[in-house]
Amino acid sequence: MTQRVSIVENILNANDRLAEENRTRIQSAGVFSINIMASPGAGKTSLIEQTLSRLNGKLRVATIDGDIATSIDADRAAAAGAQAAIQINTGGDCHLDAVMLHGALEQLDLTLFDLLIVENVGNLVCPASFKLGTHKSVLVASVPEGDDKPYKYPGMYRGVDALVINKIDLLPYVTFRMDYFERGVQVLNPGVSTFPLSCRTGEGLDAWVDWLTDNAK
Amino acid sequence: MTQRVSIVENILNANDRLAEENRTRIQSAGVFSINIMASPGAGKTSLIEQTLSRLNGKLRVATIDGDIATSIDADRAAAAGAQAAIQINTGGDCHLDAVMLHGALEQLDLTLFDLLIVENVGNLVCPASFKLGTHKSVLVASVPEGDDKPYKYPGMYRGVDALVINKIDLLPYVTFRMDYFERGVQVLNPGVSTFPLSCRTGEGLDAWVDWLTDNAK
Repeated sequence: MTQRVSIVENILNANDRLAEENRTRIQSAGVFSINIMASPGAGKTSLIEQTLSRLNGKLRVATIDGDIATSIDADRAAAAGAQAAIQINTGGDCHLDAVMLHGALEQLDLTLFDLLIVENVGNLVCPASFKLGTHKSVLVASVPEGDDKPYKYPGMYRGVDALVINKIDLLPYVTFRMDYFERGVQVLNPGVSTFPLSCRTGEGLDAWVDWLTDNAK
Repeated sequence: MTQRVSIVENILNANDRLAEENRTRIQSAGVFSINIMASPGAGKTSLIEQTLSRLNGKLRVATIDGDIATSIDADRAAAAGAQAAIQINTGGDCHLDAVMLHGALEQLDLTLFDLLIVENVGNLVCPASFKLGTHKSVLVASVPEGDDKPYKYPGMYRGVDALVINKIDLLPYVTFRMDYFERGVQVLNPGVSTFPLSCRTGEGLDAWVDWLTDNAK
């Protein structure tokens, strides 16, 4: 058991060192970068599409999309106006890690971009443990997922710099106690920047895009 | 790299051996057992609640609920009428494994039950790789998650014996092309028993409960 823990620690330490290299590389190119995490289907790709549409060329954006399989997400980001969209297929891995991001960064001339959006694998557990080297971590929660997720997935909610609450247009049709949800969030991550919005109706997206633009300056 | 792969293989082999022990134990007690997997918030616990309500004591049910943290799910199962409800908190682990189920089974007198429902950690990736020893695997998909999930999480869709499509009451409010979704499913898992339903409205639940009851006979 001790040996297993120590192997896991070594993997995480090696990952963190490479994440720092990634950060230096991104930073020195003058690019602002985010790592978007969420459950499957919470709306990471829709958020990226709507963000690109609202930025409307104001920032030059590269996306790196992680998935077990397919290039659906990178295709959607490219169609929505990303100047570059790279797909990482992890095979079986349930998260991106710093090695995968390092490989993807090799394919980009970072000096051509202002904003790098990394879309992690849909998973509320493991991505939280693997730093990538991005500036900010963003969690996309989603109303139909239910209001108990901060309580059940504390590691993810604790570690993020911004929280998007997507699909607020579904609030009338599901049971979601916003006060219960937010109480859970505040215990784990007091004062985290929170953006309730709907990628479907567009409500709330401006505040999110403002946050991103302010950070990318 | 080779060494890492071989460690993973050894872990999976050891898991499979213990899963067989679990199966023998469950089987010899005359209990039918299922392993319910899904994304966070797809509705595993709601499905268990609605199933217990419809069974209405017809079968004696034990539940074992896996989560990173909290006993919310076991509490809900007990309140809904499970004769026994055991919570496994995995700490950081993103899936149940045969060792965890083995420990939980130690706490149950299986001869008192007809049906054992294991609720896995909310995750569309890793739970698919860890056999527990249950008779059937059930995946709960959910309409607001989107119709591309079979394409993005093939390992999960490929390995299950039954597929519940939950939250069909939300079909009018989201974009979900049922034919596209089902095409993906059929490629990976032709002829899998499929149950479109809504835990909120009750639509479609009878067919699911019939399947469960027929299997538990």
